[in-house]
Amino acid sequence: MPSSPQPEASRYSGFSYMPELRKDPVTDQWVIISPGNARRPADFIKHPVSSVRTEQNCPYCAGHEHSTPDEVFAFRHGTAPNQPGWSVRVVPNKFPVLCIEGPLEREGEGIFDRMRGVGAHEVVIESPDHVISMADLPEKAIENVLGAYRARIQDLKNDHRLRYVLLFKNHGEAAGATLEHSHSQLIALPVVPKRVQEELRGAKRYYKEKERCIFCDMIRQETKAGTRIVLETERFVVLAPYAARFPFETWILPKQHHSHFEEIDGAHLENLAWVLKSTLRRIDKALERPAWNFSIHTAPLQDGASPSFHWHIEVTPKVTRVAGFEGGSGFYINPTLPEESAKFLRDAGPG
Amino acid sequence: MPSSPQPEASRYSGFSYMPELRKDPVTDQWVIISPGNARRPADFIKHPVSSVRTEQNCPYCAGHEHSTPDEVFAFRHGTAPNQPGWSVRVVPNKFPVLCIEGPLEREGEGIFDRMRGVGAHEVVIESPDHVISMADLPEKAIENVLGAYRARIQDLKNDHRLRYVLLFKNHGEAAGATLEHSHSQLIALPVVPKRVQEELRGAKRYYKEKERCIFCDMIRQETKAGTRIVLETERFVVLAPYAARFPFETWILPKQHHSHFEEIDGAHLENLAWVLKSTLRRIDKALERPAWNFSIHTAPLQDGASPSFHWHIEVTPKVTRVAGFEGGSGFYINPTLPEESAKFLRDAGPG
Repeated sequence: MPSSPQPEASRYSGFSYMPELRKDPVTDQWVIISPGNARRPADFIKHPVSSVRTEQNCPYCAGHEHSTPDEVFAFRHGTAPNQPGWSVRVVPNKFPVLCIEGPLEREGEGIFDRMRGVGAHEVVIESPDHVISMADLPEKAIENVLGAYRARIQDLKNDHRLRYVLLFKNHGEAAGATLEHSHSQLIALPVVPKRVQEELRGAKRYYKEKERCIFCDMIRQETKAGTRIVLETERFVVLAPYAARFPFETWILPKQHHSHFEEIDGAHLENLAWVLKSTLRRIDKALERPAWNFSIHTAPLQDGASPSFHWHIEVTPKVTRVAGFEGGSGFYINPTLPEESAKFLRDAGPG
Repeated sequence: MPSSPQPEASRYSGFSYMPELRKDPVTDQWVIISPGNARRPADFIKHPVSSVRTEQNCPYCAGHEHSTPDEVFAFRHGTAPNQPGWSVRVVPNKFPVLCIEGPLEREGEGIFDRMRGVGAHEVVIESPDHVISMADLPEKAIENVLGAYRARIQDLKNDHRLRYVLLFKNHGEAAGATLEHSHSQLIALPVVPKRVQEELRGAKRYYKEKERCIFCDMIRQETKAGTRIVLETERFVVLAPYAARFPFETWILPKQHHSHFEEIDGAHLENLAWVLKSTLRRIDKALERPAWNFSIHTAPLQDGASPSFHWHIEVTPKVTRVAGFEGGSGFYINPTLPEESAKFLRDAGPG
């Protein structure tokens, strides 16, 4: 079993549900939805992310500002840079995977293409206190974090070598986090990542045919059906995608059509903070503090407003092991029905 | 650090090599190659796959034939089916993710598409003995395993509902294996997996422009340069791909152009057994028995011979954790230079 969360024998005793193949309407990716007996949240392996501090001398805590490179952004209360007295702080990653200096130097080598690894790699420190989970931050603090994302993207947009900003968060060791103090990461790239390109292409194809945004259509269809909806506010909808690749995969979409996250207004930012916190708390409750990742899917930096692309956030709890099988083939097997995962998160309550 | 194999602080002390972005010429996927200090095999986290048997009552061992569903194929020495006296045995997976019975029943649901999960899910038991690693099998046994792959694909090709056979192997728990007895898996699908489609599309685009196979060109350029070659025989070349997504990612390609693995002849099968064993032993030696996956990339079942696609095997040791970041964005960060990983595997000797 490629993504089996449990020993095979205890997992399936024949089908309690007929497996089906579902296609993501944006990327055209087929996913096997093959629920056996392991379909309730309690059936998944759990390595709960500890809520107890284990880290000593955390470089992200207030008072340790000099353990990080100099900040590039902060929400401060009249205090000097790189001193205590901040609520969110953005610093270059001490061990960046890309460098901000120099020209791209694109070059070929026979059939191959390369360029220098020019870009930015920053850390968004979400709180001066050693808070471990973003879900435990007050709404106002989450709003500040989202505001910092917006500010950093707007600033990096001025560098015309950069095409895309990946904003993502790894929560818990199983999701790739190496420091426990709650933080997000930003990687600004001179290229557009493949999955984003596929989403852009799929959305454009749909728009050409129908002159409608596929995500807007998805929101209309899903809010009407209700079965895959986790929660809904005046401004946002949270749902389990029809062809979810992972158990409890959850998307947050603004109801109003906007292609670029960084154009978000204050009212949406405030509501998104509540929606994100509620989503993360439901996931924590239903799956007992799993590790998770989220990433913001937004249109490329240097593109104008697009009528076909619709920014959104994808949250993926890490409850099964993804085997190389999936990475190598681009084919996913999901043991959980999206309708059931939505119901569990819906029933988990506002948190 | 999305794919940090080590705590950040010990990993980088600035760049010992300038990071670069490399593009896979087939799929157009950009990868960040960002080597820090962790670039030697010994720098990677190791959870060696134990070579000592821990499993009791293994359903795949000789004498336990009735613990599995009835075999669909076996190399037998004149013995009756489902009895001892076999060298390779193929059985349906006891807990399949797809079902072989019934029509596809394609249907729409507004903007969504689905079909019934029709397909096959089989297990190739590679040895009657409780051998844990395929690398420890004699060459002749590996040749039989590869022959069983060929036979099963040829048989499944007769079912016209099926479009693709994914043949893959998860070795070690970290790579998704749930039983230790060496086995491979086969999933026959009514759709072509996304990554294969991308490879087919990229290869076709190149062929249209140049009237040459991109993989043949890659083999010519790489054997001439030598820097990314791990080993070469009369019939096969083993190399680290230019835009490797994972440390020590290794591809095995036949030198002669063939689009379909199942058309392989006896001489190639025999040589491939040696090449695969040597590759796996080098990986075991250089990385101290890591978990790994391999998958066979071949042209779709029902397609005729293609001048643009070239079957090959992709082997990916599991030495770093892939964070949701990569899964979500389709963007990979590889801390190891392909030239260095090829050198380590080259120097590891024939095993």
